[in-house]
Amino acid sequence: MRLVLDAMGGDHAPEAPVRGAVLFARERPEHEVVLVGDPARLRDSLSRGGGVPGNVHLHPASQVVDMGDQAFSAIRRKRDSSLRVGFELVRRGEAAALVSAGHSGAVMAGALLVLGRLPGVDRPAIATLLPALKGSGRCLLLDSGANVECRPEHLAQWAVLGSAYVRARLGLPRPRVAVLSNGEEPSKGTVLTRKAAELLRASDLNFVGYAEGRDLFSGDVEVVVTDGFTGNVVLKASEGVAAGMTGILRSAIERRGGLSEKLGALLLRPTFAGLKKMVDYAEHGGAPLLGIQGVGIVAHGRSSPRALQQALEAALQTAQVGGHAELTRCIAQAAAWLPVRQRGKRATGETLSD
Amino acid sequence: MRLVLDAMGGDHAPEAPVRGAVLFARERPEHEVVLVGDPARLRDSLSRGGGVPGNVHLHPASQVVDMGDQAFSAIRRKRDSSLRVGFELVRRGEAAALVSAGHSGAVMAGALLVLGRLPGVDRPAIATLLPALKGSGRCLLLDSGANVECRPEHLAQWAVLGSAYVRARLGLPRPRVAVLSNGEEPSKGTVLTRKAAELLRASDLNFVGYAEGRDLFSGDVEVVVTDGFTGNVVLKASEGVAAGMTGILRSAIERRGGLSEKLGALLLRPTFAGLKKMVDYAEHGGAPLLGIQGVGIVAHGRSSPRALQQALEAALQTAQVGGHAELTRCIAQAAAWLPVRQRGKRATGETLSD
Repeated sequence: MRLVLDAMGGDHAPEAPVRGAVLFARERPEHEVVLVGDPARLRDSLSRGGGVPGNVHLHPASQVVDMGDQAFSAIRRKRDSSLRVGFELVRRGEAAALVSAGHSGAVMAGALLVLGRLPGVDRPAIATLLPALKGSGRCLLLDSGANVECRPEHLAQWAVLGSAYVRARLGLPRPRVAVLSNGEEPSKGTVLTRKAAELLRASDLNFVGYAEGRDLFSGDVEVVVTDGFTGNVVLKASEGVAAGMTGILRSAIERRGGLSEKLGALLLRPTFAGLKKMVDYAEHGGAPLLGIQGVGIVAHGRSSPRALQQALEAALQTAQVGGHAELTRCIAQAAAWLPVRQRGKRATGETLSD
Repeated sequence: MRLVLDAMGGDHAPEAPVRGAVLFARERPEHEVVLVGDPARLRDSLSRGGGVPGNVHLHPASQVVDMGDQAFSAIRRKRDSSLRVGFELVRRGEAAALVSAGHSGAVMAGALLVLGRLPGVDRPAIATLLPALKGSGRCLLLDSGANVECRPEHLAQWAVLGSAYVRARLGLPRPRVAVLSNGEEPSKGTVLTRKAAELLRASDLNFVGYAEGRDLFSGDVEVVVTDGFTGNVVLKASEGVAAGMTGILRSAIERRGGLSEKLGALLLRPTFAGLKKMVDYAEHGGAPLLGIQGVGIVAHGRSSPRALQQALEAALQTAQVGGHAELTRCIAQAAAWLPVRQRGKRATGETLSD
């Protein structure tokens, strides 16, 4: 399979994407990575990285979408940006998926404007796979930040997409779906959550009602839908707690550190590795955009080479499990109960967060 | 000082409140606790707890607000409920503060209907003091769940109340205030957050703009305002991560556990105590209702005796730092820039989450 990596996107571009592509290509000799960006800078980065594997390719793009750019206008104006050129490769079938650690709003805009939405989907969502402690051990949160102001049918559409994705990627036949709320009782929540829950109660999904914040990590549900504002805030707060707790451990061990603390830390190293994995969920793997005509993966802006290697791995897995074909089937099937107010791409785009 | 404890509120009532009151009374012989509830059951619980300190008193109430009750109608109908009777003691000046681990919506309703709001405040908020890792080491999040649908001026009013509270309780002269959002750039957020930020930019508070989820624990801001839906979800997700991470540590040590893990855990015990403290923030201390004519503390429904002792301690400290007098002064001072659409108690109550 052939994957595109936006080599100019992210805080550490192009070094991190170049090194991430090389890591991936060495471990996956049967697949190919296309790095899109300024050829001179990419060659420069590649030359510093030692040998270049034969399955890493360069594709030129003269422009870059900056973090300060307005997402939709950047994709429209910068026709030779690495992001837009990368999406064009996917659209023409020259690559199976795109990964970018750049401006996430622009990744969404590129997916919408170049690839387009799946029929029956009003708004694509960013889907983040969280670690859980019991049950299936994973929970998919969507939307994680692309759509700030939402309508109930958006949440219901994401429930369909999320279920199909979890079924395909994790092999769970009937994932439990919930709407994120401030309490379990149906009387809780906002107008948005109550109307979304009403739609989902009438669906053929395995809808279990409201989930609270802690359920994201409890293993009691596999798909949780929410608006992108709440999703983003909740993800970043969770990262903050996780980073804070490992920070407390680290500083206690390093600074206060005592021989006994150091020895204790050494003995508990495998345990801490588990903790670190939980902390790193947002850094690693990348989050797929669900609801678009193709596979697009949003990676963290601060992604390291290793994180981008993981994001390419996520792109590969997502493309391999059937990409959007299964999602298309499920959304079509859901038409029986799911209202859609599909409008032009432009109208949708302009209400997205930029 | 005299404090009221709703002895019938919470999952473990009346045992947990009774034992919490006794713990507090023994450590604080110069203060008094009034347990409000069914006298026979309270005497029964007290008799099982060994000796009763002379500074623990009983006050009868024949009814109980149940978790399934509608908050406002329960306070109106159940005139002899422990919660309502407790608030009446505060209103008549017979106690300085009330603590309850019962139905948090009903605690809010009781505060509004019996004590009333501060002049200039549309809606009271639940304020939760979170642990941070740097700076002042604390961050006040409000609203933590009382008001699900909010207007910009509510957030601005809470910023004033939160600043005054942090100044008084933590002794910080000019706490940094932020609006919780899905990104730092002013273009991010919702209509609600953008309008609230606009109001706060024109204020005399130390407003620093938007805060992201992770800033709640970073020590970079001391007061963060948000709607009660987001506040509740973010708090519970943070609890979920913290509980999950300590769970990983515990299970790795207990089950996989190896002599080396057990020894490691023993050596790191003081470090883990710091972690546990971070996890327990929501359980311990209780959260004050800010914006009411008096001191009311919402404790977690699952509060243990020790948690209720801490909540009484929080009530004492809140009452001692001047209670609502300082808050009243600050809200009055803010009238220059702060719009208020104060209406009747009834109207406000009915838009609160029940």
